[in-house]
Amino acid sequence: MTESNRQVLLASRPEGKPTESSFRIKDGPLPSLGEGQVLVRNQWLSIDPYMRGRMMDIRTYAEPVALGDVMVGDTAGIVVESRHPGFAVGDAVAGHLGWQRFGAIDGSLLRKVDTTRVPLSAGLGVAGMPGVTAYVGLIDLCAPQAGETVVVTAASGGVGSVAGQLAKLRGCRVVGVAGGADKCRHVVDDLGFDACIDYKAADFKASLKAALPDGVNCIFDNVGGEVLDALLPRLRPGARITLCGAISEVDNPSPHGIRRLLPLIVNRVKVQGFIVGDHPERWAPAIDELSGHVAAGRIHFRETVAEGLEAAPRALIDLLAGRSLGKQLVRIL
Amino acid sequence: MTESNRQVLLASRPEGKPTESSFRIKDGPLPSLGEGQVLVRNQWLSIDPYMRGRMMDIRTYAEPVALGDVMVGDTAGIVVESRHPGFAVGDAVAGHLGWQRFGAIDGSLLRKVDTTRVPLSAGLGVAGMPGVTAYVGLIDLCAPQAGETVVVTAASGGVGSVAGQLAKLRGCRVVGVAGGADKCRHVVDDLGFDACIDYKAADFKASLKAALPDGVNCIFDNVGGEVLDALLPRLRPGARITLCGAISEVDNPSPHGIRRLLPLIVNRVKVQGFIVGDHPERWAPAIDELSGHVAAGRIHFRETVAEGLEAAPRALIDLLAGRSLGKQLVRIL
Repeated sequence: MTESNRQVLLASRPEGKPTESSFRIKDGPLPSLGEGQVLVRNQWLSIDPYMRGRMMDIRTYAEPVALGDVMVGDTAGIVVESRHPGFAVGDAVAGHLGWQRFGAIDGSLLRKVDTTRVPLSAGLGVAGMPGVTAYVGLIDLCAPQAGETVVVTAASGGVGSVAGQLAKLRGCRVVGVAGGADKCRHVVDDLGFDACIDYKAADFKASLKAALPDGVNCIFDNVGGEVLDALLPRLRPGARITLCGAISEVDNPSPHGIRRLLPLIVNRVKVQGFIVGDHPERWAPAIDELSGHVAAGRIHFRETVAEGLEAAPRALIDLLAGRSLGKQLVRIL
Repeated sequence: MTESNRQVLLASRPEGKPTESSFRIKDGPLPSLGEGQVLVRNQWLSIDPYMRGRMMDIRTYAEPVALGDVMVGDTAGIVVESRHPGFAVGDAVAGHLGWQRFGAIDGSLLRKVDTTRVPLSAGLGVAGMPGVTAYVGLIDLCAPQAGETVVVTAASGGVGSVAGQLAKLRGCRVVGVAGGADKCRHVVDDLGFDACIDYKAADFKASLKAALPDGVNCIFDNVGGEVLDALLPRLRPGARITLCGAISEVDNPSPHGIRRLLPLIVNRVKVQGFIVGDHPERWAPAIDELSGHVAAGRIHFRETVAEGLEAAPRALIDLLAGRSLGKQLVRIL
């Protein structure tokens, strides 16, 4: 092959919000394969909120991206060369290959995407990390029962949209929270939630209260801050809160947080923070169930697609600003 | 019997902090016994933070005390008449008999105090509701492992003092948080905690950080607010927080709360609110283990005693203001 490998590198650590100058493009040679490795031509790059954290020089549950290194991220693509017995040229795969056109990776770290049931790009969304995140956080940790009321924040996003539809399929009443009338319309009309509250509307708190006449049994939260705080007085006894993300705290020097813990005590609430990477044994069953729902038309999804690797920085900036609908992807040309 | 039954009634619902005028004394006849009931002459009344909540006209996990009714509370005393086969005159017992000298109650709601192992008053403390609260919240919900670091807030109180000593007996390093140098000295010198941080000291946050060089695996929290918030950056992966109380929020129109949820997500923390009344099956084994520790000198306790039922309102006010050390009791004369 004589094609070059285009990559997006972390150029500088942002002070405040990231900008396009936090990144830079580099063209170089294709990687050579070691024994057991697979070369993938990436077609899709997933843009996810966790990437913001990896740009900082802070060790959390994962190492930060080093300055000058390729940005981390999940991609989906086609195998173009294989030195691993489990993969053949032409296989559709997904893995953590980063913001680049070609990637070489151990076959043991790659998974196949069943394109007979879902499109390749869905291997990064409903049938990928965001889908498994929704599955583990909702089904395993919130464990909603039929007839219970579930609230999902960031309901139109890649994770929230799946969490809410899974809760509907489990027989729950599902109320979404999203930013703006367009997103809320999508959440109710296309995704089938019972209601959606626009947190940007002036009457947000009153609308939330009205939408939860019997309180809430399960909160799948991606946001934190004022939205979560407004939900706490509505908690039912024995309620569960899954903390999946806290986007309101990102780049926020004085986050709102939650002001009263007493509702958590009085109602014996369980709050559980989690990281989907801790649950490797749940990926296969989750992706299998989710792929079946997609193939049967029981779970719907929308994608916001940016064209070309060069558009990836802007796509992340837009995602963090709440300007994407559904799963944010980059099509790698 | 010709003795009168002195009672303390709820006279008015406090606006802001309760005062002595929130209560009034009433003398009246002794109750008569129904079939299956037991008449108890109370010797000790337990004063506990939950009583503040019952004074309000808000239904939480329990009904509020009605105006003009006897204040609720646990007492320990001696059976003076019995129409229940399980109890005989002279038995030492504890139960939820309220702020009064004599109480009649179904024998099924009464438990005996093993005064061969603990003093009668301890049936309201380490071998009573506070002890069981510490046991369930620490052993069942935090589940600390030997070698882990445990933080207990309100460490000199009736619940915190037991929780911390139980953690020491399980092989943990235990750091207390308490208000004032005297309380902290008691927590370390008498109760055997490894360290105690005075949250009223100017260098509170720096001291807390210094006392937790390896972070914290388990927080048994009675306080909420700034103390809990200062602990969150010290959380270890997989940490557990038991929310037992949030005294900093009581009578506080603008509580501090917790400002950042991200440490809970990054470290996959479980936060669990609980009410000891939900765990009736744990009372007998908890009290048995705790009584054994007391009898063997492995668990120590201190009591702050107010003399006479008339002193009970002031004892509650003092407790809520943090002016008691160890278990706050009233001796009923």
